Amino acid sequence: MMSWESNVRKVVPYVPGEQPKVNQVIKLNTNENPYPPAPGVQAAMQRYTQRAEELRLYPSPTVENLVHDLAEYYHLSTEQVFVGVGSDDVLATAFLTFFNSEKPIVFPDITYSFYEVWAQLYKIPYVCKPVDENLRLKKEDYVGEYGGVVIANPNAPTAIAERREWMEEIIKANPDCVVIVDEAYVDFGAESCIPLIEKYDNLLVVQTYSKSRSLAGLRVGIGMGNPKLIRFLNDVKFSINSYTINRPTLEYASESLKDEVYFRTCVERICQTREWTKEQLVSLGFTMTDSKTNFVFAKHNTVPAEELFEMLKAKNIYVRHFKAPRVNEYLRISIGTEEEMQTLIETLRAYLKK
Amino acid sequence: MMSWESNVRKVVPYVPGEQPKVNQVIKLNTNENPYPPAPGVQAAMQRYTQRAEELRLYPSPTVENLVHDLAEYYHLSTEQVFVGVGSDDVLATAFLTFFNSEKPIVFPDITYSFYEVWAQLYKIPYVCKPVDENLRLKKEDYVGEYGGVVIANPNAPTAIAERREWMEEIIKANPDCVVIVDEAYVDFGAESCIPLIEKYDNLLVVQTYSKSRSLAGLRVGIGMGNPKLIRFLNDVKFSINSYTINRPTLEYASESLKDEVYFRTCVERICQTREWTKEQLVSLGFTMTDSKTNFVFAKHNTVPAEELFEMLKAKNIYVRHFKAPRVNEYLRISIGTEEEMQTLIETLRAYLKK
Repeated sequence: MMSWESNVRKVVPYVPGEQPKVNQVIKLNTNENPYPPAPGVQAAMQRYTQRAEELRLYPSPTVENLVHDLAEYYHLSTEQVFVGVGSDDVLATAFLTFFNSEKPIVFPDITYSFYEVWAQLYKIPYVCKPVDENLRLKKEDYVGEYGGVVIANPNAPTAIAERREWMEEIIKANPDCVVIVDEAYVDFGAESCIPLIEKYDNLLVVQTYSKSRSLAGLRVGIGMGNPKLIRFLNDVKFSINSYTINRPTLEYASESLKDEVYFRTCVERICQTREWTKEQLVSLGFTMTDSKTNFVFAKHNTVPAEELFEMLKAKNIYVRHFKAPRVNEYLRISIGTEEEMQTLIETLRAYLKK
Repeated sequence: MMSWESNVRKVVPYVPGEQPKVNQVIKLNTNENPYPPAPGVQAAMQRYTQRAEELRLYPSPTVENLVHDLAEYYHLSTEQVFVGVGSDDVLATAFLTFFNSEKPIVFPDITYSFYEVWAQLYKIPYVCKPVDENLRLKKEDYVGEYGGVVIANPNAPTAIAERREWMEEIIKANPDCVVIVDEAYVDFGAESCIPLIEKYDNLLVVQTYSKSRSLAGLRVGIGMGNPKLIRFLNDVKFSINSYTINRPTLEYASESLKDEVYFRTCVERICQTREWTKEQLVSLGFTMTDSKTNFVFAKHNTVPAEELFEMLKAKNIYVRHFKAPRVNEYLRISIGTEEEMQTLIETLRAYLKK
């Protein structure tokens, strides 16, 4: 042990899904979108190339153009919008900003595993409430003496969405702490809490460009809430790093908002493929939750998930398998193209019939 | 006051230099490089445009290709290199990772003002040691019972560099804590501490693409140190955000390393312009430090800095003026193109002669 080590913040980091190097892999393990970003993004890249010399200059610290475009898109004011380096950056900054109570924050035991990592990193007390036998959240668990509430809706990896009215009761019942609603997957069939922002000053809605907008590689996340809450979030952001979103990214992200038809078409196609995949999986002996996301959370009635995970990996089909109790019975399978899902189903069928 | 506000982390954020919207501004206020990035960066942008669809995929979380290229460039192993969203991200993450002692960390009273902001944000105890009457650091101030040491070399905004041997004595005298050497400006004439990394396991050297590499708009910073130290830094980074550097940025940053001739030529040209600017400023009645950076830190013998700052701003020449005692006697003037510096000097001459 080196002598300075006792002062080190020791953590157990979140482990992201594998990024296999092999070509010809079917990658259904990190919930990426199988379709390219809106064609306008490529056009914006082409245009920006002509202005490469601008890269010598810092980006706008307040990213006001992108904030303006997002506010317009979501029917909010610019004071209600925050932008981060992916939704993880928005969420981590929100944990650091809003969760400084002695009381614990609360989130489900089965949810995005980064919540626990951030709580540990920032030394925030927390409690995890078990989901029920159907992997659903119990509403009463999220009402109480808390320092904060964090709910992914739809939840991950369960893929289950709760109604806006259901979420509203939790937000309303916790006026003394900030309620974060992580809507990374909301565009695939759930109801957003954005319309509740005007009504509840303790609500932060977080969304991302990484899933429905096919821009995981760009790193853009969005936080939306009342102006005072967004100001506090920005104060902390400006106390960490003045310039987080690089110059070209600001323009590409704005461009993505302009093509609503392309956006809706991609999302619809993924939802259709998801429903087809679910039917096929049922016919193969799987059960699964009612997914409102771009992935399914499925378990086979007889064959262990880990066995299927390894079998698929050996055939260059990457899905996600988590080790935690209960969750380890399931596979989280991202929705790829129709062709990719057909290959997945055929591979599973061949294996399960032998 | 809203009822959740008592749990908010309240901070006084760092204020970055103004980003004026007006065209035809001479922008000498944020130490940007006046020359474009290496031509290869634009070529890489052009190539990447053809692969826009890849933006649907997450970037590599370990950014191994860029780390490999940086390690090769700096003659280090890949285990000795960390990459962040600008050097501010690297520094903020290092503060959070390494400064968890009850003992205070130490840095000069006149230095990069973000150090104090990070210490306050993360509730790290700290002491600031006054620089001497020549704005120099007193070596003995940085040897003692500290939880960490942070020194910008060259220092900012003083622009003064200390020799590597001088730095080594401080690093050697503090084996029980991490010593961060912030070398944002090192390429403009100072000695880097990188050769000391093999010798001292408590040393973290931080550099940036924002100044000498003309890529402030891209947001890339570098941390270099022994493998164990870099591993701790990565553990914390992976506990905040798995994917921070976006896909195209990784390639553009690698490309920038390949054109050493262009890099050296730009840096040399800026240093020559700096020396010319210094001579001119002396002839106008300014005194200044011996700058080893891409800016000068100058005070006029009779006219207050704030007056000159406002006069220049009215003429669309932006320089930086800080409000802190002692520092407020000076202007921090970034080195622009020869033409920009001629305009600055002519403007000052016209004003000071009237």
